[in-house]
Amino acid sequence: MSLSRRDLIELGLAGTSAALITNVASAQPAVQQPAAKLPEGERIGVAVVGLGKLSLEQIIPALRKTTGVKLAALVSGHPDKARRVAAENNLPADAIYSYEDFDRIARDPRVGIVYIVLPNFLHKEYTIRAFKTGKHVLCEKPMATTVADAEAMIAAGKAANRQLMIAYRCHYEPKNLEAMRRIRSGRYGKPRLVVTDMLRGSDLNDPSDAWRLDMVKSGGGALADMGIYGINGARYLLNEEPVEVRAWEHTDRSDPRFKTVPDLVAWQFRFPSGAIANGSTSFSVGGTMRWDVFCDKARLRGDPGAYYNGNHLEIFSSPDEGEVKIAEVDQFAREMDWMGDVVRGRVPLVSPGEEGLQDMRLMAAILQSTREGGRTVTVDWQYKRAHDPAVAVPVA
Amino acid sequence: MSLSRRDLIELGLAGTSAALITNVASAQPAVQQPAAKLPEGERIGVAVVGLGKLSLEQIIPALRKTTGVKLAALVSGHPDKARRVAAENNLPADAIYSYEDFDRIARDPRVGIVYIVLPNFLHKEYTIRAFKTGKHVLCEKPMATTVADAEAMIAAGKAANRQLMIAYRCHYEPKNLEAMRRIRSGRYGKPRLVVTDMLRGSDLNDPSDAWRLDMVKSGGGALADMGIYGINGARYLLNEEPVEVRAWEHTDRSDPRFKTVPDLVAWQFRFPSGAIANGSTSFSVGGTMRWDVFCDKARLRGDPGAYYNGNHLEIFSSPDEGEVKIAEVDQFAREMDWMGDVVRGRVPLVSPGEEGLQDMRLMAAILQSTREGGRTVTVDWQYKRAHDPAVAVPVA
Repeated sequence: MSLSRRDLIELGLAGTSAALITNVASAQPAVQQPAAKLPEGERIGVAVVGLGKLSLEQIIPALRKTTGVKLAALVSGHPDKARRVAAENNLPADAIYSYEDFDRIARDPRVGIVYIVLPNFLHKEYTIRAFKTGKHVLCEKPMATTVADAEAMIAAGKAANRQLMIAYRCHYEPKNLEAMRRIRSGRYGKPRLVVTDMLRGSDLNDPSDAWRLDMVKSGGGALADMGIYGINGARYLLNEEPVEVRAWEHTDRSDPRFKTVPDLVAWQFRFPSGAIANGSTSFSVGGTMRWDVFCDKARLRGDPGAYYNGNHLEIFSSPDEGEVKIAEVDQFAREMDWMGDVVRGRVPLVSPGEEGLQDMRLMAAILQSTREGGRTVTVDWQYKRAHDPAVAVPVA
Repeated sequence: MSLSRRDLIELGLAGTSAALITNVASAQPAVQQPAAKLPEGERIGVAVVGLGKLSLEQIIPALRKTTGVKLAALVSGHPDKARRVAAENNLPADAIYSYEDFDRIARDPRVGIVYIVLPNFLHKEYTIRAFKTGKHVLCEKPMATTVADAEAMIAAGKAANRQLMIAYRCHYEPKNLEAMRRIRSGRYGKPRLVVTDMLRGSDLNDPSDAWRLDMVKSGGGALADMGIYGINGARYLLNEEPVEVRAWEHTDRSDPRFKTVPDLVAWQFRFPSGAIANGSTSFSVGGTMRWDVFCDKARLRGDPGAYYNGNHLEIFSSPDEGEVKIAEVDQFAREMDWMGDVVRGRVPLVSPGEEGLQDMRLMAAILQSTREGGRTVTVDWQYKRAHDPAVAVPVA
């Protein structure tokens, strides 16, 4: 089933041959290749919702490097800021939306994808509202603050027959992809242990960060902000799902930053293969975003392994393979172009809502364990990736 | 109370002014300074028990660099090897002992210290036999294979009024000492998290390593061999003792190496301050010996942090202090010279039997936890260092 003309308009794809486009919700993509470099007029428009640091410093600049999508609209509660950013990016005034009139975006054919870059507790509302406008949704991680919200978001996408992609940028980052690919190849034997330490070490004293220190708004403090990279990292590096989860928390409750959220959390996961993951996260101490995978025949080190830029991949083996040289790419640009190609039906959705939901469940299990003195929580749900990024996504 | 002439002979110190020497078992050392550089004739003689790789490749070469002790005897079950090593080190033929006639060393005035470098299960027997000869004992880590054996060794030392030092070389290694000292100074705020990954990644297919893969002889496989560096490391870096311990094991029992010992063990410790340690060890995967300490205001990285040579200490802070440049020393030489000065009463015993016993208890708790499905084991003993190496031992 092909998309209707109206669909095409909504996708910002009016003028593109419908023959290129398959049903985005159910088709198996026939082609898996990097984002096509499309003329400006054929790029899918992205509405960026929320103009915080991540949008201003990473996402909007990345949208100048994308090849298949382009910045099409801004949604912000700060009209002055929005006008300035619009001007800087050659957006017309009518491409600025407030949160109140966000739903009018339904009638904006320039926008095909809504990228939710709001504080975590707003992800659910804006994802569901975006689906109601008929747009596809790219949503920042963590996808929500509760498992129930995450489930509601997935249901809303299904009901709207629209794509929900979670912005796990490491699934599109060349060095993480190369590590996944090498581990899957079996050349290093079996992966046995993953260590992830995702610690920010920041004061978070900028008022715009206040929501990160609010349990209701963040869903978990550092765990939801940085720790999720380690939770997701252990899963995509091992390509399996934990069955036992436990964690201890170390929070100075006299520190005004940590009135409601946990600070330092250190956890262990056990996987069906027997593999173990040790992980940690914290707002107060850091700063690193690193992972190690210890396989039978090699240690793979990503240190840093989950930064925006400057990640390293080193292989300690016999003989040492040393640093893996792969050109750096703009992770955000690549991720957004991937979303564009998902919408076009050219590539599979490798980080769907279900991928984000699994991390929500694991964060909930970690938080439950910390509340219950570190008790081991048995995880009885099942999750299997439909598309392993190591297979689906080119390294670069 | 000064030592008797007979004591001095036994210590290989005949001819040294007795005024320099205080009662070795009970006096508070008046002087804490690096090992004195003594004329050959005044150095305390060391008998090395066991001529395996560690003795041949590290300890005996180090005894050519020591300044207060010297190689005085060899104890071996291989007469040919012993004769070759004796010749290489200018030892007379009567300085070679077999295990059967080891006890004759009591009448050898050239020997003041017996250094036990045997497989773990023999530490107890030879330590106790050495104390019966009236000598002091330096014993490799882990000090024994069971808590009960460790306790018996300590009791034997007390009964003989002789020193028992456990060969924790990192307590004498400049970069580890500098890290301890900086953490204790408070300049980085409180230490909150320690991560130690001590993984060998070796086939261990040399017949001389077979005992390491035997639970009775090793006391714990990789945990006893490498993991102990992480266990002890977390303790000396944090300068406190765990109160909760838990661990999971990941062992391929179809691998002929792991018929009796655990392979990969990943643990967590919780400390009274709230600090947490995540640790791991393995014979089959590796290879690294690294630690990280995350403090309020800095991350201290030792990577590698517990090798014989080539350790690094880096400080990530704001602004980054970067790599700490401290000249490398021969850890084994320094450790043995320290033991010499302990015997002379010049410096405190910073790694006594009680230090080793604490690690024995923690290893037992880890193994208990792995046997009981990873249950958290509450540690109800108390241990307090009499002498913190960070205070007592000069950096270099």
